[in-house]
Amino acid sequence: MTSDRPAPPASSEPVGLWLVGARGSIGSTVALGLMALRRGLIPPVGLATELDPLCRLGFAAFDQLVLGGCDVRRTKVADGVRELVDEGVVSAAVAAACAADLAELDERLCAGFFGEGDADLSALRSATEDREVARRTALAPRERIAAVREDLDRFRSEHGLSRLVVVNVASTESPPAGDDDWQTTAGFEAALDSGRALPASCLYARAAFEAGAGFVNFTPSLGASIPALREQASRQGLPHCGSDGKTGETLVKTTLAPMFANRALRVLSWQGYNMLGNRDGAVLENPEHKRAKVVGKDEALRSLLPNPDLHSFVGIDYVPSLGDWKTAFDLIHFEGFLGARMNLQFTWTGSDSALAAPLILDLVRFTERELRLGRGGVQKHLAAYFKSPLDGSTHDFHRQFSELQAWCDDELAADRG
Amino acid sequence: MTSDRPAPPASSEPVGLWLVGARGSIGSTVALGLMALRRGLIPPVGLATELDPLCRLGFAAFDQLVLGGCDVRRTKVADGVRELVDEGVVSAAVAAACAADLAELDERLCAGFFGEGDADLSALRSATEDREVARRTALAPRERIAAVREDLDRFRSEHGLSRLVVVNVASTESPPAGDDDWQTTAGFEAALDSGRALPASCLYARAAFEAGAGFVNFTPSLGASIPALREQASRQGLPHCGSDGKTGETLVKTTLAPMFANRALRVLSWQGYNMLGNRDGAVLENPEHKRAKVVGKDEALRSLLPNPDLHSFVGIDYVPSLGDWKTAFDLIHFEGFLGARMNLQFTWTGSDSALAAPLILDLVRFTERELRLGRGGVQKHLAAYFKSPLDGSTHDFHRQFSELQAWCDDELAADRG
Amino acid sequence: MTSDRPAPPASSEPVGLWLVGARGSIGSTVALGLMALRRGLIPPVGLATELDPLCRLGFAAFDQLVLGGCDVRRTKVADGVRELVDEGVVSAAVAAACAADLAELDERLCAGFFGEGDADLSALRSATEDREVARRTALAPRERIAAVREDLDRFRSEHGLSRLVVVNVASTESPPAGDDDWQTTAGFEAALDSGRALPASCLYARAAFEAGAGFVNFTPSLGASIPALREQASRQGLPHCGSDGKTGETLVKTTLAPMFANRALRVLSWQGYNMLGNRDGAVLENPEHKRAKVVGKDEALRSLLPNPDLHSFVGIDYVPSLGDWKTAFDLIHFEGFLGARMNLQFTWTGSDSALAAPLILDLVRFTERELRLGRGGVQKHLAAYFKSPLDGSTHDFHRQFSELQAWCDDELAADRG
Amino acid sequence: MTSDRPAPPASSEPVGLWLVGARGSIGSTVALGLMALRRGLIPPVGLATELDPLCRLGFAAFDQLVLGGCDVRRTKVADGVRELVDEGVVSAAVAAACAADLAELDERLCAGFFGEGDADLSALRSATEDREVARRTALAPRERIAAVREDLDRFRSEHGLSRLVVVNVASTESPPAGDDDWQTTAGFEAALDSGRALPASCLYARAAFEAGAGFVNFTPSLGASIPALREQASRQGLPHCGSDGKTGETLVKTTLAPMFANRALRVLSWQGYNMLGNRDGAVLENPEHKRAKVVGKDEALRSLLPNPDLHSFVGIDYVPSLGDWKTAFDLIHFEGFLGARMNLQFTWTGSDSALAAPLILDLVRFTERELRLGRGGVQKHLAAYFKSPLDGSTHDFHRQFSELQAWCDDELAADRG
Repeated sequence: MTSDRPAPPASSEPVGLWLVGARGSIGSTVALGLMALRRGLIPPVGLATELDPLCRLGFAAFDQLVLGGCDVRRTKVADGVRELVDEGVVSAAVAAACAADLAELDERLCAGFFGEGDADLSALRSATEDREVARRTALAPRERIAAVREDLDRFRSEHGLSRLVVVNVASTESPPAGDDDWQTTAGFEAALDSGRALPASCLYARAAFEAGAGFVNFTPSLGASIPALREQASRQGLPHCGSDGKTGETLVKTTLAPMFANRALRVLSWQGYNMLGNRDGAVLENPEHKRAKVVGKDEALRSLLPNPDLHSFVGIDYVPSLGDWKTAFDLIHFEGFLGARMNLQFTWTGSDSALAAPLILDLVRFTERELRLGRGGVQKHLAAYFKSPLDGSTHDFHRQFSELQAWCDDELAADRG
Repeated sequence: MTSDRPAPPASSEPVGLWLVGARGSIGSTVALGLMALRRGLIPPVGLATELDPLCRLGFAAFDQLVLGGCDVRRTKVADGVRELVDEGVVSAAVAAACAADLAELDERLCAGFFGEGDADLSALRSATEDREVARRTALAPRERIAAVREDLDRFRSEHGLSRLVVVNVASTESPPAGDDDWQTTAGFEAALDSGRALPASCLYARAAFEAGAGFVNFTPSLGASIPALREQASRQGLPHCGSDGKTGETLVKTTLAPMFANRALRVLSWQGYNMLGNRDGAVLENPEHKRAKVVGKDEALRSLLPNPDLHSFVGIDYVPSLGDWKTAFDLIHFEGFLGARMNLQFTWTGSDSALAAPLILDLVRFTERELRLGRGGVQKHLAAYFKSPLDGSTHDFHRQFSELQAWCDDELAADRG
Repeated sequence: MTSDRPAPPASSEPVGLWLVGARGSIGSTVALGLMALRRGLIPPVGLATELDPLCRLGFAAFDQLVLGGCDVRRTKVADGVRELVDEGVVSAAVAAACAADLAELDERLCAGFFGEGDADLSALRSATEDREVARRTALAPRERIAAVREDLDRFRSEHGLSRLVVVNVASTESPPAGDDDWQTTAGFEAALDSGRALPASCLYARAAFEAGAGFVNFTPSLGASIPALREQASRQGLPHCGSDGKTGETLVKTTLAPMFANRALRVLSWQGYNMLGNRDGAVLENPEHKRAKVVGKDEALRSLLPNPDLHSFVGIDYVPSLGDWKTAFDLIHFEGFLGARMNLQFTWTGSDSALAAPLILDLVRFTERELRLGRGGVQKHLAAYFKSPLDGSTHDFHRQFSELQAWCDDELAADRG
Repeated sequence: MTSDRPAPPASSEPVGLWLVGARGSIGSTVALGLMALRRGLIPPVGLATELDPLCRLGFAAFDQLVLGGCDVRRTKVADGVRELVDEGVVSAAVAAACAADLAELDERLCAGFFGEGDADLSALRSATEDREVARRTALAPRERIAAVREDLDRFRSEHGLSRLVVVNVASTESPPAGDDDWQTTAGFEAALDSGRALPASCLYARAAFEAGAGFVNFTPSLGASIPALREQASRQGLPHCGSDGKTGETLVKTTLAPMFANRALRVLSWQGYNMLGNRDGAVLENPEHKRAKVVGKDEALRSLLPNPDLHSFVGIDYVPSLGDWKTAFDLIHFEGFLGARMNLQFTWTGSDSALAAPLILDLVRFTERELRLGRGGVQKHLAAYFKSPLDGSTHDFHRQFSELQAWCDDELAADRG
């Protein structure tokens, strides 16, 4: 699959990958996966950056990536890995081979803080919070940013990192209530000054940019998508991308919906039911948090199907026994020629974390390369990775992937030129 | 959906659509659908040629198309329509409104003949054959061709047709046994001279080309795909396309398979079970005929998934009670990151005839336009319509459709230029 | 299937079947089906009372049953039948053959009234209500009962009916709010006197009993299930049964759940999603009405699966395009030996009306037979027909059916004895 | 779930469980499961003998059961367990805790021999056979029986076993060709004398009976089902049961089919597709072996559905990547009232071994109890455990289970009486 790939420009330089939500199940999977890849224990399944032609772009090698991160929880990354082993997602042998690395990582992770949109998760919070998290949560916005920035700086200097990418994989925040004056550049600074409660994801993005890092928002939270932060990224020449990783049901949806449109078939109803049992599912039990997620899943569909009467529905239900195994059932009811009523049903059964982790490694590689090349702003060519792509031109997965391939061709041509 | 479309060059000219297998269930659906479209009883759901930008290419209007055809069966088109009504595919009201048109068409249809690959369908044959069919089946190859050609010439003159497109929708033939010397130009003429048994679909294609008609092969039979006939079409400047309409399960397969490939997910097994109950299904009970069909359905998959160990299977089973409602169940078992085993299952329930008919109308329009523009040979840009596209570059549906759109853009640019 | 069945005792006597909600889609199906059965146009598929040994019990013949009923809507039964034809549920030919009978029935149907639990259906109401319905809705409870009773008496005398069975197939009511003092015998009379708003289904049941009729409650509404009415039925020796016909997903659920229990498999989660598009679905969009329905569907499951940690969920979603075709998807996640996690998924696609109608004919036959034999009270042996069987000992469908068979054996033995 | 169960009569007596095919995946699961139950590592999920009221019958306790067995393969039971861990069927922790027990068992297992119906499995054979297996396979029938009997006697004396049950879990044999004179008592002796090739399963059953053991045939092979062996069992007063454990798809089928029959719904077609990837699947790739399996799966259905036109199909396909995770897809197409066409589809995903193992432990307990009580012959009350129950009155699972419960009630009454 791979071919004569040029070595990444400076292969000896370590680069940092800082996970916000490092102790969650995606974070644990990224950590275990990266360690297993480095040791050659697993093939790079799930990483498009390992396939031709993307692999020729000179991405950072797996052993150049240094992991760090923070979390509001006290659980260990190793605990998350054990859960994945128990649920049959990853093999016990691979986990055992990486146990020492995981333990070492656990020692290095920092405390996070709870944000505005996390306010009502008190049950989860009390179960997980530690003293340093409480201290940070009590800080004013600018102080929170400073605390994160200190962590990033220390991470960078301790490991001699050339470049740094911050990735948000924390639980979905609820959309902030009230006006959104604070989303503009001026409003954001004013809000920081006034101590107004702001989404944690925005503060982390701000801290990342202050530290000269790239930013990847893998969640539906706001992250760097607000005007204030997008402008800052452009100004500083820092690359970022988001929002909300397109891992499972939405991937299938945005692959299938254009098929109906291209065949001039009239989709009457598209019902999608998502069942999941991991912490993400528990958080989404909260109606506010669920709304943030559902909007992203539904808007893709409506944009791809021209039928104005389309009836669509996206449900997300917490089914604890499923653990990390998300099951989605979709019923697509459509009309064909002469009014014939037909349907397509699909059931998707996938490990959310195992689907997300390789996408994150891909995104970090793309973002690190931009940083290295000194290019900032939204990486529009990465729309294929997201449910709600920043500045994305379409939700059609194949079209998004074609755009990525075209971008890649241009990059390779520029390399040769 | 449609926009400022230029009128087709000579809107008053009638053009002929001649169906080989006109009394079958696809033939009946094409006939009913065309009549209903002409009367404005149904919207043009299922016809991509009605969508922007294809609709701007100046295709023949529905009321320019004149239907004709032949069949080996004695059943009426109206009987086929009644079955579709009974099975809930089409509405009784639409069928009633078109009853007189259907009866008139039934009067005009000609006899067909049984060919080499139909030899063992004796049970079906005895139930359906009439005297003229028996007479034609007894003719030598060149006489068969002449008989068809006479039918086509009479059709053309009786209706004052400017152009003619022959479409093969007859039951799948079994692949001919023995050597294939006869597929070359010289060999084909020699075989015609020697009276060697040849596939009926090839003889129909030959008759079409002799009559200056375009040819559409909607079945997995050989049709115009053999070297002798491809050369003839090029020589005479006659357009053609095939093979085997991509209507249902294969459409979904060739839409989904690239998704796995692009995400670097490793498909381990792809099991596809097709259940169908119409005459097509009865014919496919015959293992020889089934093989012809299955090959086309499987090769697409293998070309789209890079995994050399891929285990794939395509089953076709006759389930009489399903009638025209084909149900396909596919299980896609795949490996993701860190070895996690996941799966996607889908069930497709569609009316085969209602899916096929609009594609046939689209293909006739494309082919008629080429005839009108004096362009011959394989229409490579129509790969999106076929399971085994002639000269197709890929089986990836979205890529095929993008190529069709690119071709359309070129055509529109040329119009404007 | 059927065998030497004794003729029903007095085959010349007409018996009445009075439908509350006669113009709905179940009502239309009962009417069309009964007419088609009488004319011998269809086999008695779906009627257990036609199978051995039940068929030997001497039930009323189809041509003894005279239809009547009322509704709050102005639509015609013939319109409901047309919808069923359009949706492919019933054949156009059968509908055409019964058109005159349906038109005659339409003339005879009476006005209904809106009740307490229907209060917020104002949109539906304004679209359907007529003047007589408005007049009746404005009446005091005792006057409403009297109006219904007058209708029943007139129906009985006009057709010379020997016996009468009232069946509730009206839309699901929301459960009445507030205290339930009125459910006792004394409380009910007091509530009737005071003019307190009471569920329409209770008033219809009361009217039925006053008229000496049997009562079948095919909906989750209260009907005759409240203490006051159960006592009245016992006192008057009038048979009744309910509640909520077990037609589709719950039938499958209560068949499958005991399998898991008997095999000592531990069901962890049972997620059930119901999608439906008929008027019943529109009514269930209302959260209050939905709750009434969901409770019945869920309690069955919990009683059949001993696992105290069982996670179960029942969703009902309105999907207009599905019309009468209800689709249910269930995921059953269970644990087997050695902790192995397995699952069963099913998709049920059935016409709600076609499933319900034969059960109603069965229930009317059972109830008429009890009336004829002078036996009153709850028909416990009919638990197999209901989601929430009155005085039912179990929800296990096979056990319920075994109880029905045992009851039948006793009846047959008594006949012979 | 369990209640005041009387201790088994002589709890200190060890009883033997001898597995023919001990190194297969079912054998490995039985071994691991029994060890884990003894150590209290897992709950007794999947064992009906642990549920009330069966649990009151005084069955042998888990720590009374001593494992032994034979196989034609050289692989280790521990290897089979490792595969189950890798496939996510059982947990690594449980396997680790029982590793020493498994290793000890591996030491004690004996060689088996290949039989008549295994003749064409040469590929499998060469990969697995060892010298002692080859030697035994070369023996004459009576010598083979003597060899097995020696193994059983040694097993009994070494462990001081009070009673012994032999269980056949070896790969499915193909049905023997030619006449079946040898199935009678006289014919069987003659065939043994003449050295005629006989099914291995019959020879094992014979050896078991000669050794005074009970016999459980968990496979579709003949085992003790031939007249000669049934007579011997009756004569000697030895209990046995079979054939072919009802573990997955057939369990669901025989639970659902009576539902359709009881509701008078007409099943038109029942298509069942089984996909499996373990050694059982590989063996079933062989058409002869597959036929033996499919017959059992199909006959159940036909006996439960009265429709004489029923179209049914059972497919079994080998899908290596699925390993022990069998996936079955069934489409049930049925007709309801007024000719409405509906369907139920289900997908069953279960670990074959984890489903089979607890049934085997149940069957051994039942058989041991009969031995202890001195009762011989077919255990008709165990029909619920088998696809093709010996002397079974019905295939209806719920009816079979009711019969088991009735038998249990009689036993308990007799205990008390």
